[in-house]
Amino acid sequence: MGDVAQRLADIVGADNVVSGDAVGDDYTGDEALVGEQTRPAHVVKPASADQVAAILRLATEEVLPVTARGSGTGLSGAARPRAGGLVVSFERMNAILDIDTVNHVAVVQPGVTLSELDARTAEVGLGYTVYPGELSASVGGNVGTNAGGMRAVKYGVTRNNVLGLEAALPTGELIRTGGRSVKTSTGYDLTQLIIGSEGTLALATEVIVKLHPRLAHSATVLAPFPTLETVMKAVPQVVSSGLAPHILEYIDALTMAAITHTAELSLGIPDSVRDASQAYLVVGLENRDAGRLDADVEVLGTVLAELGAADAYVLEGPSARKLIEAREKAFWTAKAAGADEVLDVVVPRSSLPDFLDAAQAAAARTGSGVVGCGHAGDGNVHLAVFQKDPDTRAALLHDIFAAGMALGGAISGEHGIGRAKKDHFLQLEDPVKIELMSRVKRAFDPAGILNPGVLFGRED
Amino acid sequence: MGDVAQRLADIVGADNVVSGDAVGDDYTGDEALVGEQTRPAHVVKPASADQVAAILRLATEEVLPVTARGSGTGLSGAARPRAGGLVVSFERMNAILDIDTVNHVAVVQPGVTLSELDARTAEVGLGYTVYPGELSASVGGNVGTNAGGMRAVKYGVTRNNVLGLEAALPTGELIRTGGRSVKTSTGYDLTQLIIGSEGTLALATEVIVKLHPRLAHSATVLAPFPTLETVMKAVPQVVSSGLAPHILEYIDALTMAAITHTAELSLGIPDSVRDASQAYLVVGLENRDAGRLDADVEVLGTVLAELGAADAYVLEGPSARKLIEAREKAFWTAKAAGADEVLDVVVPRSSLPDFLDAAQAAAARTGSGVVGCGHAGDGNVHLAVFQKDPDTRAALLHDIFAAGMALGGAISGEHGIGRAKKDHFLQLEDPVKIELMSRVKRAFDPAGILNPGVLFGRED
Repeated sequence: MGDVAQRLADIVGADNVVSGDAVGDDYTGDEALVGEQTRPAHVVKPASADQVAAILRLATEEVLPVTARGSGTGLSGAARPRAGGLVVSFERMNAILDIDTVNHVAVVQPGVTLSELDARTAEVGLGYTVYPGELSASVGGNVGTNAGGMRAVKYGVTRNNVLGLEAALPTGELIRTGGRSVKTSTGYDLTQLIIGSEGTLALATEVIVKLHPRLAHSATVLAPFPTLETVMKAVPQVVSSGLAPHILEYIDALTMAAITHTAELSLGIPDSVRDASQAYLVVGLENRDAGRLDADVEVLGTVLAELGAADAYVLEGPSARKLIEAREKAFWTAKAAGADEVLDVVVPRSSLPDFLDAAQAAAARTGSGVVGCGHAGDGNVHLAVFQKDPDTRAALLHDIFAAGMALGGAISGEHGIGRAKKDHFLQLEDPVKIELMSRVKRAFDPAGILNPGVLFGRED
Repeated sequence: MGDVAQRLADIVGADNVVSGDAVGDDYTGDEALVGEQTRPAHVVKPASADQVAAILRLATEEVLPVTARGSGTGLSGAARPRAGGLVVSFERMNAILDIDTVNHVAVVQPGVTLSELDARTAEVGLGYTVYPGELSASVGGNVGTNAGGMRAVKYGVTRNNVLGLEAALPTGELIRTGGRSVKTSTGYDLTQLIIGSEGTLALATEVIVKLHPRLAHSATVLAPFPTLETVMKAVPQVVSSGLAPHILEYIDALTMAAITHTAELSLGIPDSVRDASQAYLVVGLENRDAGRLDADVEVLGTVLAELGAADAYVLEGPSARKLIEAREKAFWTAKAAGADEVLDVVVPRSSLPDFLDAAQAAAARTGSGVVGCGHAGDGNVHLAVFQKDPDTRAALLHDIFAAGMALGGAISGEHGIGRAKKDHFLQLEDPVKIELMSRVKRAFDPAGILNPGVLFGRED
């Protein structure tokens, strides 16, 4: 191990290798609620793509497990290292290399945070439209987990907003995939294959992201509904309305009470309406033209009323911002409330009512609590699960995941499988696909060094 | 071979196997302008996914080359079979299985043509927005080549509009990838990996495509520009305008003369303007609201004038339709005019002027003709190449592809590599990526039966 530390120091400089007990707690995991944090043998902090490639070459030679780390804000344990392994932290590779206002792309290093990219692109009226709840997340982490967030309903997820990568292969080569153009049909799309692979295929060392014009005018509309079912049935109708909302979230009554309480936020909803509402829809509209926005908000009000909303409140700027922020912090609210796990099952929009019914029934059977909110427009539900007993919780999760898959959905819409949901993934997914994915993994990573134990593979 | 024919007949029925000299010319290739058509040993016409899987299992056992065929409208030779091999024709698997107006998806068999899907989705006010020039193309062919077309500038290419697949692996298993939801982060994205793989990884047996609402109002604006350079410089500005055109094409003066002549189309442009114009921009706008469309067309006119357009003609319905159709038929016009090859290099939008300069310079050096049009909004240029001598043409193509790649682009934006551009692809692409793609290919197709000689692999 001493030898490895020296060889790592030869690559990145002694100041940028931390070993053994000197490794800080930050590097022992991410924000996943389950599983044990693990101290790696070394944390190494490269400053360039060539250094990343050299680290991976060394790791393949020595068959050392390698876990990539952006900001560590993931929720599935994909940034939890292996004991005896390496953490490659991208904290020093955090430069915005170019903001290209002609092609509407930014070229960034993977350690750039979303908040910094947001601030810099705002200066030129553009924006990277992937907004997962946590703006301290890194672009590299977005790539690893195919992050989504509220605006995906209009702008798509990471997969739809990354045009190209530079990436280091486990075997130590650097490749460039895609580019600043929006399409290609020139061999297999390695960009798309690496996105969402949770650090198991290659490590992105540079990311080309799409930018969209920031629209000057936006409005946030809050609509209380009598039942969860009516709100879920309303979702596809709002999507079909042609109003193209950039936010379309549902929040159940318990979650709304919790997040508004935490944020000390008063929404001005009369008690009588609130007491009669089991769920809320939050709809964001935006436009480059103020008049068109106003007209669209009016149409939206009519649509929501027809769909059974008790009312539709157009929130003023600060209230709207606070509600969106409170919604983004729902994970922290759930964590503070003692949630034992947070899920992000995705199903076809039309299956949201059936899925939530199934989840509630499974919770009732096991004496568990399940509350939530989510990206309703995408069919992506964030459920906070309250069940202390690990075995009961595992059985509950199995039933919830199986219900989602039976409805044509998937275990995770945007958090990924990581370590936290791997056992469920391996139990529930088609073994033919698992075997095919394993073969693809070996095609990239013959020595199996990249994030072993994440998605699949040995857990030793 | 007799044995194989019998075993194929056992799978699909004797009526659905055609062998030897009985194989019609239609099955000997696609619309690629170069390369020899090849007669396969057998054409087999499955009616179900299970039959496709059984055919592939047999082919893997016997190590028989398999070429999938949709409508045969491809331009790169990816549907040209191997002598002694099989063609799997999807002509009988042409059902639209579901049009889901709640989730905005259609579930189709791969042999469905775009024109049929267009007609059926129109009945419910929705549409599949991938419009390559040829509406007799099949959805399965779209998947194979990651087809694009005019509306990609707003709606994206096939990759952005396919949510899931059922696919037969070369080893004879069926898998389902993705689904009716718009996102997933549950293992590697096999959907995206199969899209654009030109029949070399797996054969789609069912495709779930995204549908978009059809907007009621549209307008087509034609703007003549004095030079190709001014039109190319205008493109990123129109994209940045916020008007979100669904069509943004350029047509050079020679191509415009040819396609309007062929279509017997008069655009009502004064001779003096036409004679002073080297290129045209065609901009399509659409809106659900007629008033907003009119306002946008007015803004567009101002934008185009500022960018140096000689004028901006709002085409009336029939003229607009005819011009778009004539542009879609540009390939046929080029073919009729004796073009020797048609290219579809893609570059970043900002690099269009430099790329076209480089292409013209390369043509001038070799005494070749290069004219074209293309999806300017995507940086995707369709060049008709006139050069009879194969060696000179190969050198010219090499220089044009190399110029595109040096500008950050790729050999093909939407036609694919197939057989026609394989040698250039293998010469110009990073060998590390070629080797990685080959390993991915082997992960799917250990016996190497699927479209050998397309993209890479032996040509025997």
